[in-house]
Amino acid sequence: MIKAAILGATGYAGAELMRILSSHPEASIVYPASHSYAGKKFSDIYPGMRGICDMVLREDDISAAADAADVIFLSLPAGLASSLVTPEILSKSVVIDLGADFRLHDRSVYEEWYHTEHHSPELLEEAVYGLPEIHRSELKGRRLIANPGCYTTCSILTLFPLLKNGLIGKNGIIIDAKSGTSGAGRSEKLSSLFCEVNESIKPYGVATHRHTPEIEQELSLAAGESIVLQFTPHLVPMNRGILSVCYAHLEDGVTESDVAEAYSMYSGEPFVRIIEGLPETRFVKGTNLADISYRIDKRTGNIIAMGAIDNLVKGAAGQAVQNMNAVFGLDETEGLVMGAGCPL
Amino acid sequence: MIKAAILGATGYAGAELMRILSSHPEASIVYPASHSYAGKKFSDIYPGMRGICDMVLREDDISAAADAADVIFLSLPAGLASSLVTPEILSKSVVIDLGADFRLHDRSVYEEWYHTEHHSPELLEEAVYGLPEIHRSELKGRRLIANPGCYTTCSILTLFPLLKNGLIGKNGIIIDAKSGTSGAGRSEKLSSLFCEVNESIKPYGVATHRHTPEIEQELSLAAGESIVLQFTPHLVPMNRGILSVCYAHLEDGVTESDVAEAYSMYSGEPFVRIIEGLPETRFVKGTNLADISYRIDKRTGNIIAMGAIDNLVKGAAGQAVQNMNAVFGLDETEGLVMGAGCPL
Amino acid sequence: MIKAAILGATGYAGAELMRILSSHPEASIVYPASHSYAGKKFSDIYPGMRGICDMVLREDDISAAADAADVIFLSLPAGLASSLVTPEILSKSVVIDLGADFRLHDRSVYEEWYHTEHHSPELLEEAVYGLPEIHRSELKGRRLIANPGCYTTCSILTLFPLLKNGLIGKNGIIIDAKSGTSGAGRSEKLSSLFCEVNESIKPYGVATHRHTPEIEQELSLAAGESIVLQFTPHLVPMNRGILSVCYAHLEDGVTESDVAEAYSMYSGEPFVRIIEGLPETRFVKGTNLADISYRIDKRTGNIIAMGAIDNLVKGAAGQAVQNMNAVFGLDETEGLVMGAGCPL
Amino acid sequence: MIKAAILGATGYAGAELMRILSSHPEASIVYPASHSYAGKKFSDIYPGMRGICDMVLREDDISAAADAADVIFLSLPAGLASSLVTPEILSKSVVIDLGADFRLHDRSVYEEWYHTEHHSPELLEEAVYGLPEIHRSELKGRRLIANPGCYTTCSILTLFPLLKNGLIGKNGIIIDAKSGTSGAGRSEKLSSLFCEVNESIKPYGVATHRHTPEIEQELSLAAGESIVLQFTPHLVPMNRGILSVCYAHLEDGVTESDVAEAYSMYSGEPFVRIIEGLPETRFVKGTNLADISYRIDKRTGNIIAMGAIDNLVKGAAGQAVQNMNAVFGLDETEGLVMGAGCPL
Repeated sequence: MIKAAILGATGYAGAELMRILSSHPEASIVYPASHSYAGKKFSDIYPGMRGICDMVLREDDISAAADAADVIFLSLPAGLASSLVTPEILSKSVVIDLGADFRLHDRSVYEEWYHTEHHSPELLEEAVYGLPEIHRSELKGRRLIANPGCYTTCSILTLFPLLKNGLIGKNGIIIDAKSGTSGAGRSEKLSSLFCEVNESIKPYGVATHRHTPEIEQELSLAAGESIVLQFTPHLVPMNRGILSVCYAHLEDGVTESDVAEAYSMYSGEPFVRIIEGLPETRFVKGTNLADISYRIDKRTGNIIAMGAIDNLVKGAAGQAVQNMNAVFGLDETEGLVMGAGCPL
Repeated sequence: MIKAAILGATGYAGAELMRILSSHPEASIVYPASHSYAGKKFSDIYPGMRGICDMVLREDDISAAADAADVIFLSLPAGLASSLVTPEILSKSVVIDLGADFRLHDRSVYEEWYHTEHHSPELLEEAVYGLPEIHRSELKGRRLIANPGCYTTCSILTLFPLLKNGLIGKNGIIIDAKSGTSGAGRSEKLSSLFCEVNESIKPYGVATHRHTPEIEQELSLAAGESIVLQFTPHLVPMNRGILSVCYAHLEDGVTESDVAEAYSMYSGEPFVRIIEGLPETRFVKGTNLADISYRIDKRTGNIIAMGAIDNLVKGAAGQAVQNMNAVFGLDETEGLVMGAGCPL
Repeated sequence: MIKAAILGATGYAGAELMRILSSHPEASIVYPASHSYAGKKFSDIYPGMRGICDMVLREDDISAAADAADVIFLSLPAGLASSLVTPEILSKSVVIDLGADFRLHDRSVYEEWYHTEHHSPELLEEAVYGLPEIHRSELKGRRLIANPGCYTTCSILTLFPLLKNGLIGKNGIIIDAKSGTSGAGRSEKLSSLFCEVNESIKPYGVATHRHTPEIEQELSLAAGESIVLQFTPHLVPMNRGILSVCYAHLEDGVTESDVAEAYSMYSGEPFVRIIEGLPETRFVKGTNLADISYRIDKRTGNIIAMGAIDNLVKGAAGQAVQNMNAVFGLDETEGLVMGAGCPL
Repeated sequence: MIKAAILGATGYAGAELMRILSSHPEASIVYPASHSYAGKKFSDIYPGMRGICDMVLREDDISAAADAADVIFLSLPAGLASSLVTPEILSKSVVIDLGADFRLHDRSVYEEWYHTEHHSPELLEEAVYGLPEIHRSELKGRRLIANPGCYTTCSILTLFPLLKNGLIGKNGIIIDAKSGTSGAGRSEKLSSLFCEVNESIKPYGVATHRHTPEIEQELSLAAGESIVLQFTPHLVPMNRGILSVCYAHLEDGVTESDVAEAYSMYSGEPFVRIIEGLPETRFVKGTNLADISYRIDKRTGNIIAMGAIDNLVKGAAGQAVQNMNAVFGLDETEGLVMGAGCPL
């Protein structure tokens, strides 16, 4: 059994991780921690887990976690992980960070978009960007995994094959993305109140959202050159789900079958479904799946590529477990529910 | 492996059953059927199940189902099951009926509340009312199981201990229940449209709802005498969940600890949680759990007993699988997810 | 024109009052105030009102308000109004308090349920309980109006005719009420977050909710003797609306037409509709209307009386304006929109 | 008083029109009609209007309507209006068509996108595209008004100033639009059921939605040359609202103040608000307002222009009344509520 620690276990992503790990056949939680609720039972904070996980929450102490666990999941505010992770910690435990601190290879890009100092730039090289569909070969046996963001997972998976195969123009890419409200986290702020979110949709972070450089980094890798793109997130009145609708200009002569062939890179993937219909977030809700589809518009010469995931699962906790499975040599699907209930 | 057939696989309860059985370690679906969608793939109707269950739907042919399967689940409109089930069918397969046809022991009560003839009254005696927490001892090896309704499961579990132990008055019981919209089914009717349900709450079926006699039957059993009660259902703008808030007058001298002791009848139950806080449907969403709590009001002399379940799981498909497990001698929890994600 | 001040203008009830008064033909806002947002424009806090009400918010200074205005609306936390209102203030302005401080005639009942001292018990006698359908004759020319609560308005209007006419038993009355989330206010608390409210229903304040004594006070008045009843509120995932479902035992010999006659007390009321169907909160959303209906159940001998209002309008701001209209001798409907859009 | 007829009064747009006209100070409904509900009271179909509009619905007879009314509003399925409107009808009544039949000047474009024959192409020249902010000068005294679509109103208002002033590239414009569910109408279809819409977001009509040529027609007018653009609509789990997020490349040298100046074309408009913050549909819900904002992204060279309206008001019934006001020489704001309640 893999012994797991979770720091930040009572945020929405951390709690989803607790739930998934509670029924994982090859892992067990040994150190659940929460700065806000240390000393309380996890199931007092998440009563849905009463009887399933009644463990008492510990302090967010990474050293104690490293002593106790084979793998430490971090689900912490930006900037905190980079000050906690050290070579010594990594010598004891694998660290899978659900936050942003180790996702961007370039420290200056991180500091520019996050407006904060990076506390352990020397570890950036060791970190693997944990999107198994793209970086699987780098995962096995690694010690520091940067678990991708929710918008980014969805957007990168959707666009990667097109750029990798040179099917679309590298300029002018636009990603119009939509998120359920759990993406805003569990903190007590006015803009997250039911009556401020319900019955409305809004864009936010226009031209400034922090997931932009992360998407650009990975798509630049696909394209083999630097990609600059437009990314716009929206808040949708639902609990979960990310929908990324991506617009790009098809290169001359590219055919429908070229596109289909590009997406066939996912044909062996357990968690990616290339679908004929259009994606709807409800069809991946509660699962680690990504549904991807596309349409070519001959009038405009554009391709519209669309992806959907559950932001707390494939966009956070589920992918973190998929990464753990990969790092420890398990089947990547272990412990990850497959089909989506509907309605859920 | 238990071979399972499902007739009515594309209604919400049937589809949830398909989902649960798809990942059940001891059962496999051999005959999925749908009158409306025969010939199509299940995952074309429920795209959330693409790649997980792509079986082609058959016609709702109970004979063919009985030839193929060890257990047949029926999720059909009222009145249909009683015309399909015969001794011959039962000699080949266990039948678990998610509908109402075999729930009421008294044919005349059925015909009065359902305004339709019962087509196989001779089978009523063979049927077991499939609420394992109450009728477990009768389940093993039986051939015809009447799976309880959603409101009824929740209401009976909540009130049973109080009546069984004579703690409350037998007159004047009131059940004010609330349901998510999936309880109204998947048929295309005006009253189920998003814009007719969203941002509103309404009572319906006041004094006339068909789950009333079913609740009365089981609570009369608990009380040892005939119970007549008030039951009022409501429609709530959410996908899933049943909340039953039950009001009764405490008998003289009954103490808090008498009540606690009565509810201790559930102490070994895997799916019933007696909780200190008040139940919320989200804490059982997607699970087969029932959360039950109560408050005694000294001002009024009343007890307010409250229960919450997921109408499609403990109120339908999950309980059906729990019944299958019990009938076939498996652990009742087999294949049934335990903790509730939150938010889900 | 009536000059109006509003203290607490940026809570949900206060803001609704701002909106209604902004288009009131006989009133104008002269002193909008908010402790939290003093110095900001109202429309910066409520952007829906940009261009319609861009007034700068003042401090919550009741003396300044009294100097400027003919009527002061108070929408403040419990306990604050009773420390602000004085005979001097009342000599300058009419005060309409949307809070609870002047609703209960008996100071000790207030202090027991609100766990706080009442700061101006000498004014309790001067206060009128501002439910115009019941206390209209007392309103005209009065200086201190206690605007009823949301649950209470709905519950009292629904049950008053039955008790006034002695049609139901005075013991055993049960009110099972449901509220939209705006009833929980605009403060930043975990339990009001979208992801904590959405897709769930829950009871709260069981046997302890503060609206209980207020309902009992007014229904005791109707009954001519002291009424003790059971009141249970619930939180519903929708922005607005109150539904009160009230259970009582009909007295022997009471007929359907006795009940109809009792409810005919509302026949001239502009804001009460006795309807044949069952109430749904959406049909009164955004209006000052109360929809009331009832069913008699011969099996149980009960009457189920049901009422629906919009908690922010008839349950707060709309009723406050109705009271202002009555006090100042205007038509009670002035400035109050009538029909409900659907879907809204 | 302007006498008004409404054909198709019980769809969502028709019903909203009924509500607005019921309180319009200069108009009265004389002929409310509904094919589906002829003979019933309007308030039986829309109980929110009980006591406010209890008129009996007539058959959808345009001749009878023309005899009775000064203005006929048509809210009918595509293709029906063009077969009903004749010069004779127009000689008796002004016709304001909320459908698509008279919006496109080019019959062949209509027939290509709507896959149906146009039954009165000779009237296309007489029709005015009823977007008052753009075509006000053509409205007064006209007999046939094509009321714009919901997505189109929002998208055109948002982009018009940029194209009119040559500030953006004419190629590569992308409109990613989102709509509340009332936009799908009141017909009983599976995809509009609560449980199929709730807790999900989906794109639909990608590259094929019928509002595309309507947007292109008006923006081509603005640009002075033919515009081809990408339009993608989405379904959002909320009752009302349209959000159009529009992407375009800024022409070289265009400054923030050029853009501000372009949008100043709306400075005298009663229903358009150029806002500093980002639009949210809740801030225009229930009103005839359009909120518009923009951001310039120096990294990409793009402008992101965003608009929000209520699809049933500015996107349908409210704009129809605004058009009626304009045609009959009234103040355009007559009868149209201004500020948005929040939460609503």
